[in-house]
Amino acid sequence: MTAPEILTEIWRGDILESVHTGHAVICDHKGDIVEAWGNPDHITYPRSSCKMIQALPLIESGAADAYGLNSEHLALACASHQGAAIHTDRVSKWLSGLDLGESDLRCGAQEPADIPARNALVKTDDSPCQYHNNCSGKHSGFLTWNKHMGHGADYHDPSHPLQVAIKEAFEDVTDENTPGYGIDGCSAPNFATSVAGLARSMAFFAGASEDGSAREKAALRLHRAMATHPELVAGETRACTELMRAMDHKVAIKTGADGVFTAIIPEKKLGVALKISDGATRASECTIAAILVKLGVLDPAHPATQKRLNAPILNWNKVNCGTIKAVDSLK
Amino acid sequence: MTAPEILTEIWRGDILESVHTGHAVICDHKGDIVEAWGNPDHITYPRSSCKMIQALPLIESGAADAYGLNSEHLALACASHQGAAIHTDRVSKWLSGLDLGESDLRCGAQEPADIPARNALVKTDDSPCQYHNNCSGKHSGFLTWNKHMGHGADYHDPSHPLQVAIKEAFEDVTDENTPGYGIDGCSAPNFATSVAGLARSMAFFAGASEDGSAREKAALRLHRAMATHPELVAGETRACTELMRAMDHKVAIKTGADGVFTAIIPEKKLGVALKISDGATRASECTIAAILVKLGVLDPAHPATQKRLNAPILNWNKVNCGTIKAVDSLK
Repeated sequence: MTAPEILTEIWRGDILESVHTGHAVICDHKGDIVEAWGNPDHITYPRSSCKMIQALPLIESGAADAYGLNSEHLALACASHQGAAIHTDRVSKWLSGLDLGESDLRCGAQEPADIPARNALVKTDDSPCQYHNNCSGKHSGFLTWNKHMGHGADYHDPSHPLQVAIKEAFEDVTDENTPGYGIDGCSAPNFATSVAGLARSMAFFAGASEDGSAREKAALRLHRAMATHPELVAGETRACTELMRAMDHKVAIKTGADGVFTAIIPEKKLGVALKISDGATRASECTIAAILVKLGVLDPAHPATQKRLNAPILNWNKVNCGTIKAVDSLK
Repeated sequence: MTAPEILTEIWRGDILESVHTGHAVICDHKGDIVEAWGNPDHITYPRSSCKMIQALPLIESGAADAYGLNSEHLALACASHQGAAIHTDRVSKWLSGLDLGESDLRCGAQEPADIPARNALVKTDDSPCQYHNNCSGKHSGFLTWNKHMGHGADYHDPSHPLQVAIKEAFEDVTDENTPGYGIDGCSAPNFATSVAGLARSMAFFAGASEDGSAREKAALRLHRAMATHPELVAGETRACTELMRAMDHKVAIKTGADGVFTAIIPEKKLGVALKISDGATRASECTIAAILVKLGVLDPAHPATQKRLNAPILNWNKVNCGTIKAVDSLK
């Protein structure tokens, strides 16, 4: 088994303060590995980086069209949003259109990461609700599927027909049997796969064609929705939003908790997946930016890139104290 | 060179989701290594974990006594506090007693981590100030030294006599020549040392006697102040505060940014230092708790311990999704 390799270095002054190891894979649409770092067979949870896979049944079942979902809804179904008004307003309206409400969600309440939304709650002594949960769009997609299919309310239960359908889609696009699932932050099951399997699934999305299978057509709609609405997939200041904008809406990327990142690059029919061994976001963001630059789809000089790749570490006085640096092997 | 070793495992379901490697050393008061994990010679920045060393000149110079500092002041001088009212009120009063104010600090403004203090600022549309900076107590100690000694206002400059005095003390108690410094989050220089050197310095504090040198007497006052006032060293819900209370105020411990933790155990004349390679706090807290349990000074059944050592990972619905687990070699 190949060990993880160092992908990100944290320099402070002339001393290497911290290092992040991990595994990363670039895969083509035939499912072959183009390039890899660390161990492609390393098993991990994709966490939120696979939300576009979890949204496949929403379209394939006919639910999305039956309820008139547009590309904004689909982007939210794939989102880890930060609970800003642009997210919660849309989720609330979406659910009321289904004659459902906040209490039908099963994701739990989460304080919004969006500062204006957070401050609005503080000022009115309000508590965050399930609409603010970063996964409320994904769960609204789940509820839409469930309304259409008529199954039980606990759509997040691993034995619920929705999760069975997600597992089938997940194993199909990763081309692997999942070794199991964990329970995610939003209480939905999250199926494990290898980093190569996750990259393979992203390459499936990247290679999906208008003329392809129903699954390919669904994949195409989902990654296009993500790239079309970067602000709905995460939010202002966030890596997914800023980097998708920097790539002119041509590439869909998605972060996942505990150091995961995925990318779908249709123009090259390539998929990317990476897992930082220790789960650090600063390293997953630096590494995905480095790989996107290497693949020629992200401008290294763009401010959104420079905020993550070889980015300065600023202190409370805005003094430059160090650098978050990608290793040379990512060049 | 010995590689870092795995110290903390992050389990979700039946799958190992993430791992944290690092270096840890237990040292006795003679400066000898009692036990080590990873590489004792690994060079790192102690960051805030060495604030008690940075406070030695405050006492040794006579400044602390000249300005009537009590044990609360000394605890704050060693603190990474969370900007709660109990911290900022004391810092403000301390500085006004020196005929100084907020603008004399050089640490920068920082949003308080204390939720009530943060919400109070939001509700009044106020911005955080330098009093809220987690290092404002350390900097108040610096200003006290500087007032007593009569040097220039930029006490954080690496060439300032205060920082020269700190470097001398740092090299003395670590018994190493520092390979250099980095600029810390609060703009003060932070001198590098080996993990063994940092543990050795903590053992110096642990072995300090009433009958010892002026430096020993200063060290004794500082670690006693920390253990006497755990709530001033960090704040409610924080690891330093909760674990020092759990150890009946008999042990002083201190966290540092980017995965550092130190401990001073006077009853055993032992010092502990650890550095998590990737800088993760969840791993530094789990590891220091494991070592303190191993050394018999922390009850593994105490709720403060169980919050960090083999702690459950709860999601937004409070569902138990996994465990933050110390490796067996720490038992």
